[in-house]
Amino acid sequence: MSAQPAYSRSRPCRLAEVPRWDAETGVAVVGFGAAGACAALEAVRAGAKVTLLEATSGSGGTSALSGGEMYVGGNGGTPQQRAAGFTDDTEDLYRYLLMAGGPDADAAKVRAYAEGSLAHFEWMQAQGLVYKDSFIPQRIVEPFTDDCLIWSGSEEAWPFSENAKPCPRGHTPQWMGLGGGRYLMDVLAARVAESAVEVRYDTRAAALIVDESGRVAGLVLRRDGQDSFLRATRGVVLCAGGYIMNKDLLRQHAPQLQRANMPIGTVDDGSGIQLGQGAGGHAIHMDQGFVTLPWYPPEQLIKGIFINARGQRFINEDCYHGRVAQHILQQSGDRFWLLLDREIFAEPDFGQFAKITIGATGDSWQEVERELELPEGALVSTVELYNRHAAQGQDPLFRKAAKWLRPLTQGPFVALDCRIDHAAYFSFTLGGLDTLPTGEVLDAARQPIAGLYAAGRSACGLPRWGAGYSSGMSLADATFFGRQAGKRAANP
Amino acid sequence: MSAQPAYSRSRPCRLAEVPRWDAETGVAVVGFGAAGACAALEAVRAGAKVTLLEATSGSGGTSALSGGEMYVGGNGGTPQQRAAGFTDDTEDLYRYLLMAGGPDADAAKVRAYAEGSLAHFEWMQAQGLVYKDSFIPQRIVEPFTDDCLIWSGSEEAWPFSENAKPCPRGHTPQWMGLGGGRYLMDVLAARVAESAVEVRYDTRAAALIVDESGRVAGLVLRRDGQDSFLRATRGVVLCAGGYIMNKDLLRQHAPQLQRANMPIGTVDDGSGIQLGQGAGGHAIHMDQGFVTLPWYPPEQLIKGIFINARGQRFINEDCYHGRVAQHILQQSGDRFWLLLDREIFAEPDFGQFAKITIGATGDSWQEVERELELPEGALVSTVELYNRHAAQGQDPLFRKAAKWLRPLTQGPFVALDCRIDHAAYFSFTLGGLDTLPTGEVLDAARQPIAGLYAAGRSACGLPRWGAGYSSGMSLADATFFGRQAGKRAANP
Repeated sequence: MSAQPAYSRSRPCRLAEVPRWDAETGVAVVGFGAAGACAALEAVRAGAKVTLLEATSGSGGTSALSGGEMYVGGNGGTPQQRAAGFTDDTEDLYRYLLMAGGPDADAAKVRAYAEGSLAHFEWMQAQGLVYKDSFIPQRIVEPFTDDCLIWSGSEEAWPFSENAKPCPRGHTPQWMGLGGGRYLMDVLAARVAESAVEVRYDTRAAALIVDESGRVAGLVLRRDGQDSFLRATRGVVLCAGGYIMNKDLLRQHAPQLQRANMPIGTVDDGSGIQLGQGAGGHAIHMDQGFVTLPWYPPEQLIKGIFINARGQRFINEDCYHGRVAQHILQQSGDRFWLLLDREIFAEPDFGQFAKITIGATGDSWQEVERELELPEGALVSTVELYNRHAAQGQDPLFRKAAKWLRPLTQGPFVALDCRIDHAAYFSFTLGGLDTLPTGEVLDAARQPIAGLYAAGRSACGLPRWGAGYSSGMSLADATFFGRQAGKRAANP
Repeated sequence: MSAQPAYSRSRPCRLAEVPRWDAETGVAVVGFGAAGACAALEAVRAGAKVTLLEATSGSGGTSALSGGEMYVGGNGGTPQQRAAGFTDDTEDLYRYLLMAGGPDADAAKVRAYAEGSLAHFEWMQAQGLVYKDSFIPQRIVEPFTDDCLIWSGSEEAWPFSENAKPCPRGHTPQWMGLGGGRYLMDVLAARVAESAVEVRYDTRAAALIVDESGRVAGLVLRRDGQDSFLRATRGVVLCAGGYIMNKDLLRQHAPQLQRANMPIGTVDDGSGIQLGQGAGGHAIHMDQGFVTLPWYPPEQLIKGIFINARGQRFINEDCYHGRVAQHILQQSGDRFWLLLDREIFAEPDFGQFAKITIGATGDSWQEVERELELPEGALVSTVELYNRHAAQGQDPLFRKAAKWLRPLTQGPFVALDCRIDHAAYFSFTLGGLDTLPTGEVLDAARQPIAGLYAAGRSACGLPRWGAGYSSGMSLADATFFGRQAGKRAANP
């Protein structure tokens, strides 16, 4: 017998290795972000004894770093959508989320969420979250005010607009300024505090415990360097976030995300995913991530065009900012600019935060091209082609919608510098454990692993394709499917 | 106790579940392709009892579908390289393979292979493989003749040419015509037949058997619907290929490869990878694959330019055909053409096989553009920009080498149709189990799993980045690291 424990995140502790049970619970939830909080609340309300484990010293996780937006709609629309004049059909929400999920969208999860979205929004409000009855029609990233409803995806942009009737679906809680995620988590944490959920902070899940049949039976916990053994009679729910902070895993699964220099994460070291994999869970779409550069508002910047290091356009600029950034990361070369003329020039609202600066100016596009040291004609031919069609209200190459189209002909001209490693590219991972809508973790044969559940970014949920991400999808997924996992774990 | 066995590819059979041992061996090798054959030969020569298991009724695996090329060099050069006037420095081979491995190249494997490549080539010849002392200087895919040495990668193309002195390294055995992979496998299979290796055909590996500590102790075998239990006292080596034939796994890990309509595989259902994952092995780079369209020879076609559905160029056309195809798959849209003028027009040698046909012709590029129904100016502006710089022997956008540059000005003009779903895109997967150069399978913490080894496309080897693949890398990797795995398994 070696001095080192045989178990690790990647290797479950066998039941025979458990020296003693230090404690017993019904449902053990790993991670006190939005998914974990919702899982714990539903499990305890379903009558289970619940222990919620958190590696840091407080609640919130990466959810608390977010804007607090949830992607909500369908069912005829939320009060905010209806007040703004939108009726949101469940099938439109379904089709949009199916497209947003990419080539392997999880139709079962999308269906469950599309049908349950409005009721889930009401549940969130029943927890104490307040949403103002207001709508910001301009394209923004998230409100600087306490307003609620925004366009938070690519709903009005090609190709999404062709497949689902556009509707704004980003719902931000009533919280003045950025950072509504902290408020959202404070509300959920208050409900947890009032409940019978036992919360243990500063406590890591060091390993799962599995019995002879492979069933998950508990957790090895580590606190202050000491291991303790927690029996979980009903199940373990992994809500420990993604893996954007784990450089080794990033290199092995999503090396392109290493190009994004602003990871959004608290712990997010992949431990939730690894614990699940060690017990036979199948991690899927591990190469996918969210990435963005908040280059608008003001929305007039959408009338500009993005070019890469070869002076080529590569995306319709009216899609979601994260979809633009995703396409930036897919290009070879590190240099990117947003081209503007005098009429639409503005400093981006997030300019200093996003480190977007002026890269070049000129009285002609030739001058801008030379200043950027681009090959002769590379930028100019791109602008000329764009202008020729924009003058007719068309963008046959990338299908930017007509409302954003005008020729860039009013000098002087500007190129905003959006270079990777100059500007700030924010990112988190989307790959994770394959799960059923109930939260049950699946093996590679899509058979559930008894006693094991996952939600939030430890699972591969609604958002699983970087090019389809829309703001609010991750919190919507984490809270909704966190609830399902908590319910199912309580009554397996 | 249910009637269904609790074990599967994804769930190892616990030692306690083993009802009896039907047989015992030292090293069990799963899969009789190039990796498995080499592993078995080295293991038996190291004194182990060896059982080689093959799901089909014969030897060869996907290796036998290949051209038989191996990517070999360094150490001053092979006899073929030296006869052709090339001295190949080990460090150039090392640097090339490191680039070819992409952002997470496995430096330890690249180092081992670069230093051992020439000796390994000699070992292959000692098995009976014959290589003619000849060199084809033109850029081809593989010889139609029995010649040996070819340029089989992107050695002379940017950016590879800037980092490693170019040298041809594709070595094809002396076999008249295409399909040298069958010959290569026949030679290896003859050596296996002469050896003490026990071969069992029509036998699948249904599950690994693991003991209480997680050590791999054998295999559950399935033949004619019956399970039998094979004890492996020294180890199990997984050489069961990749997963290009498994549509579910493709969708979950590499959905872009679904766009390639000609998977190259025999079994390649992911069973090797899944068996390893079930025992705690960590599969990495599961999104990566090789893809190609054999659009040259004749090499004069390289003087043409590829455009996408928006009329844009996207790659230096002088790089390896698979790197071109990889960039095709990364573009949005399904339409692609190779633009040629009268002076360089030719039917591709693989035209019918690759389903490359003439998409449009015209006396002017405007006419071609209209015939392809491209937006006005989209193709023409691309050709004009290319021609402007090509006339000066430069390609500042994509850095195609000067020898391939000339303006496309001699009408009539032709667009060869390389549309996805029209032309034939061949593919196989590159993601697999993370292993040490010894073949030991690693868990996510990079700790070896006792008794478990992998090689070939069940492992993630030298080739692990689609955009860096070069012909011969996979067979070189499978044979070289198959040998290491066999040696180590025999003497763990």
